[in-house]
Amino acid sequence: MIYFDSDYMTGAHPDVLKSLTDTNMLHTVGYGNDEFTAKAKSLILSACSIDEKNGDVYFLEGGTQTNAVVIDRLLDCHQGVLAADTAHINVHEAGAIEATGHKVLTLPSCNGKLRANDVEEYIKTFYSDSTHHYMVEPGMVYISYPTELGTVYTRRELEDLHDVCAKAGIPLYIDGARLAYGLAAEGSDVTLPIIAALADIFYIGGTKCGALMGEAVVTRRKELLPRFVSLIKRRGATLAKGRLLGVQFSTLFSDELYLRIGAHAVALAMKLKAGAVAKGYRLLIDSPTNQQFIILPNKKIEELRHNVSFELWGPMQPDETPVRFVTDWATTTNDIDILLNLL
Amino acid sequence: MIYFDSDYMTGAHPDVLKSLTDTNMLHTVGYGNDEFTAKAKSLILSACSIDEKNGDVYFLEGGTQTNAVVIDRLLDCHQGVLAADTAHINVHEAGAIEATGHKVLTLPSCNGKLRANDVEEYIKTFYSDSTHHYMVEPGMVYISYPTELGTVYTRRELEDLHDVCAKAGIPLYIDGARLAYGLAAEGSDVTLPIIAALADIFYIGGTKCGALMGEAVVTRRKELLPRFVSLIKRRGATLAKGRLLGVQFSTLFSDELYLRIGAHAVALAMKLKAGAVAKGYRLLIDSPTNQQFIILPNKKIEELRHNVSFELWGPMQPDETPVRFVTDWATTTNDIDILLNLL
Amino acid sequence: MIYFDSDYMTGAHPDVLKSLTDTNMLHTVGYGNDEFTAKAKSLILSACSIDEKNGDVYFLEGGTQTNAVVIDRLLDCHQGVLAADTAHINVHEAGAIEATGHKVLTLPSCNGKLRANDVEEYIKTFYSDSTHHYMVEPGMVYISYPTELGTVYTRRELEDLHDVCAKAGIPLYIDGARLAYGLAAEGSDVTLPIIAALADIFYIGGTKCGALMGEAVVTRRKELLPRFVSLIKRRGATLAKGRLLGVQFSTLFSDELYLRIGAHAVALAMKLKAGAVAKGYRLLIDSPTNQQFIILPNKKIEELRHNVSFELWGPMQPDETPVRFVTDWATTTNDIDILLNLL
Amino acid sequence: MIYFDSDYMTGAHPDVLKSLTDTNMLHTVGYGNDEFTAKAKSLILSACSIDEKNGDVYFLEGGTQTNAVVIDRLLDCHQGVLAADTAHINVHEAGAIEATGHKVLTLPSCNGKLRANDVEEYIKTFYSDSTHHYMVEPGMVYISYPTELGTVYTRRELEDLHDVCAKAGIPLYIDGARLAYGLAAEGSDVTLPIIAALADIFYIGGTKCGALMGEAVVTRRKELLPRFVSLIKRRGATLAKGRLLGVQFSTLFSDELYLRIGAHAVALAMKLKAGAVAKGYRLLIDSPTNQQFIILPNKKIEELRHNVSFELWGPMQPDETPVRFVTDWATTTNDIDILLNLL
Repeated sequence: MIYFDSDYMTGAHPDVLKSLTDTNMLHTVGYGNDEFTAKAKSLILSACSIDEKNGDVYFLEGGTQTNAVVIDRLLDCHQGVLAADTAHINVHEAGAIEATGHKVLTLPSCNGKLRANDVEEYIKTFYSDSTHHYMVEPGMVYISYPTELGTVYTRRELEDLHDVCAKAGIPLYIDGARLAYGLAAEGSDVTLPIIAALADIFYIGGTKCGALMGEAVVTRRKELLPRFVSLIKRRGATLAKGRLLGVQFSTLFSDELYLRIGAHAVALAMKLKAGAVAKGYRLLIDSPTNQQFIILPNKKIEELRHNVSFELWGPMQPDETPVRFVTDWATTTNDIDILLNLL
Repeated sequence: MIYFDSDYMTGAHPDVLKSLTDTNMLHTVGYGNDEFTAKAKSLILSACSIDEKNGDVYFLEGGTQTNAVVIDRLLDCHQGVLAADTAHINVHEAGAIEATGHKVLTLPSCNGKLRANDVEEYIKTFYSDSTHHYMVEPGMVYISYPTELGTVYTRRELEDLHDVCAKAGIPLYIDGARLAYGLAAEGSDVTLPIIAALADIFYIGGTKCGALMGEAVVTRRKELLPRFVSLIKRRGATLAKGRLLGVQFSTLFSDELYLRIGAHAVALAMKLKAGAVAKGYRLLIDSPTNQQFIILPNKKIEELRHNVSFELWGPMQPDETPVRFVTDWATTTNDIDILLNLL
Repeated sequence: MIYFDSDYMTGAHPDVLKSLTDTNMLHTVGYGNDEFTAKAKSLILSACSIDEKNGDVYFLEGGTQTNAVVIDRLLDCHQGVLAADTAHINVHEAGAIEATGHKVLTLPSCNGKLRANDVEEYIKTFYSDSTHHYMVEPGMVYISYPTELGTVYTRRELEDLHDVCAKAGIPLYIDGARLAYGLAAEGSDVTLPIIAALADIFYIGGTKCGALMGEAVVTRRKELLPRFVSLIKRRGATLAKGRLLGVQFSTLFSDELYLRIGAHAVALAMKLKAGAVAKGYRLLIDSPTNQQFIILPNKKIEELRHNVSFELWGPMQPDETPVRFVTDWATTTNDIDILLNLL
Repeated sequence: MIYFDSDYMTGAHPDVLKSLTDTNMLHTVGYGNDEFTAKAKSLILSACSIDEKNGDVYFLEGGTQTNAVVIDRLLDCHQGVLAADTAHINVHEAGAIEATGHKVLTLPSCNGKLRANDVEEYIKTFYSDSTHHYMVEPGMVYISYPTELGTVYTRRELEDLHDVCAKAGIPLYIDGARLAYGLAAEGSDVTLPIIAALADIFYIGGTKCGALMGEAVVTRRKELLPRFVSLIKRRGATLAKGRLLGVQFSTLFSDELYLRIGAHAVALAMKLKAGAVAKGYRLLIDSPTNQQFIILPNKKIEELRHNVSFELWGPMQPDETPVRFVTDWATTTNDIDILLNLL
């Protein structure tokens, strides 16, 4: 059986596991106040071209948790977060944002992306409404990079979003659950320092990109996250053995492992896409990253299931159904060859 | 100046005020455990044709508060409330529902109304999604009667909604902030007992329909609101002098005052509508209740403002703009005549 | 039957009711944006000797609601409110503060009062704990004036609390549910301007002191309550007919009615206390305000109940039990004479 | 340097790390729906003598998170959790319980323990208060085993607590962050099946007892945790690579590793305690588990710091200060010998 169900089906990238094994018996203090965590912060800020004086990094365990804690910190009580209707925080987090008392203000997505114009329009309309004091005020913008549909924003699109947010005086927050794969997107002009410069806050996904678990919240404006340590604890998001996150992220950010992981997976995804298209299959979405959405005849789906594990993308349709194949650091060229052969 | 800004511009209907004045010096215990409140409950259950054995009534002070407390009681932590995108709870309550931890799951509205088919479809799609355990589960349906746009559901539409909810095993809740006016809707086949039979819970609006303030939550299934007294207190919605609500609602539900208030206001609204249409004005929405949405040339709006107080319905448009005229128990035939004259 | 159960057994002071009646048919806009509310704010700020430039007043409907909204605004997410263990917010609000996500940090009370030393000690201990970032930070101090036991702080005690709070950089908030009676406390050296100068925020209780319902939140530092209008709405605490609060408080703050109400009730309470003591009864607490706690033999309690309505203060004890008699603006000298006669 | 700061200073027990390494490249589905997790559940239920038909196990990542999610599920909105004032949820979780809207109702602790009599008294007093509908209702009892001070309840004490809770109809929940060490307590008559039979819900701590991270919530009454999967997700507590918890707990519950870990650490702690006492040092608390609280002269503390890492237990006192030494699975006999030598 070869696996393409998701990018969290295996443990950690071998280099990361080795670091964990090598440091296993070392004693450190807890809660992330250890030397590995300090080192990881330094490596990350450097990779993001963020000055240690102004920036900061916090480590949490999972994406849903991270989004909830960051958003709750950035918003005032009566404020909500602007996001695409396909946003993870709007669909697949069982109401984690609302659980902290905030509303997700959705805008129609276009290929999973939020358009700067729509954000600008929403804000303008909001303040022109004389009753806006009794409405949820948009307090920040949330986007995912890549999006839930594998698509990525161009540098220009990110700059436009950044500008609209800056003009409105609200932060732009980027959910980077799959950031490694986003940074390796085919034809992309966005680098990690660019993400770091255009987002006010973003997180670097570890769980889906080589770590056992872990996400690194990064900001070039540390004043945006006051008292964040206490808020993370209050939400039960403080890992007692914080050093585990420090060790993993140190390894991911040494020798550009994080970027290599992304490049590896995306190269294989591009090979899969090209191969599928060459065989005449249609794409549901033309994704430049590690999630590939291909429309397959139901008969082919049944055939494939004997040897390939993957998920349908939505409910079964009458004749053909979109499916999703996900590559990650553990995917091999052999896996792709076998899959293409079977398609 | 004549006033049509809203239905909460004056105090209480003279009969209601008189009851308050007459009972002012009487001593009662607090928190609604008094004889007036008991009487009002009885009168209301009777007017709703609800058996006192199964039903119950609770008095709160305002609509936003009432919606938040009821919805929080009806939903489990991970559940959300299905509502039209124009729903008051989605737009004008500054996130009061989210403040209790719940998501408002919006569906497109049609003339301000929710369609039973859309609700049924949403629920079906939800449960067919294999990842639904990580999504906000629809736990109830919210509609307003009349809607925020003054429209009303036909009996058939309410029955369809009732059936869809019953089949899904979730409660149907009706926000009756303007219920008196809804019950007097031109051509309506819906009565108070019908509302009471089709909704699992609903509230009878007092604030906009003759009371100084107050809303009565009514249910024919008391088991749907366990420990409700404590929850109301926890949300700061318990009026210490609960008897004030008992006195007012007793008066409103004696001699059908509540219905007469509705009929009075709606008759005047219909006169206004007919008159405006006769003069060639277009309606933004053909509303059968006390809110009338008429499109006026901006020049006329400027003229009117010298003698008439009213609100624009949305931002000023280039040439003509929709405005809203609201009638209530205090509006007089003279007011309507003057307005029609000026139009 | 004569009544001493509580200070919310009757409607409104006749002058207040008259104002409501006189203004009943006047049209105003809603939500407190009306001229009566503006006037009431002005009168209150003036009575408090607060400059209109720096101060502000907000009207809400009930004490529990008011406490929850103010405390939620003053505290950051991870902060809690320091209060006496007898504090209303700790005992009788069904967890309204926790419902907004905040912890009540209790300190032992002394005659219902919080001691400045205890507050200072708590804060010092908190910051000396190296793990304090994982604990709830004390973000404000809450006291009631008078306390739940009818006692009052001397001016010196308030100054000490003020100083401790100022030094710690946290606001001092005073719950004035019975403020009128507190200001008339026998032997008190505290006036309304003194309360206003020493508290950062406090509320003037209307519900228990002459209004039908209503509490006025007052601050000499308006910057402490940013976006408060939206937060009040979000908690369902905005009265649609806000003018009702404006009318009532305007009347209460004209001709010193509020203070006269307090003086009247407290004078009668003092007469009751003196008379009971003269008859040999013991006081549970020597209260200088409108709540009197007297220990009565159970036999006397049974006797009294035929003609007097009052509450036991705690569960029935074997031989004698403390009871509470409450006077307010509606109590008459005759009521006191009758009661003393029966005692 | 030898380390005694805490029981979360190192990674995972070698056997657990080996299991993670061995399974690292195996593909499994996410969110705990994998075979390792299923196996771990089975092993745990078996070790607890709980019938798989009635019981259930859920895996989360950390103690604070676990407590918040469980307590929020067990309590109705207006309810609070009874706990000792020293309870972790009352002191060191930055208000995580209040963050879910619930109040912690504290009772005085005795050696860190809650007394069944106190719980019974509290409940009795609560319901005898006629105003209890406006107070936070005690909805469950929380204890830690061992307590925050290392002490343990006898079987009889647990039975008494169980009985009081059962009689009141509320669940007893045990926080087992250090359960392995509690089960190995010197002279204890409590086993894992006994914990499982007397608690309605409890969690088996992994983070402090051999795992990298992870806690297993166990119940013999699965109906107490309806929709728990969604609630866990909503609180951001669902580990995407759930299998990591399954692998670790499977290893911990094979060959009684979990119990052996506890026995190892406690034996060393007892050796330390006996040795310290033999040298004339006084114990702050006579703890039978892995946390030892010894009073040392400040001079000795200074000396020790050159070679031993440990925490003060509270602020530095004038002459002598209590310190805490913690042993765990990684502590060696050599560590103890060195420490005793230095004392």
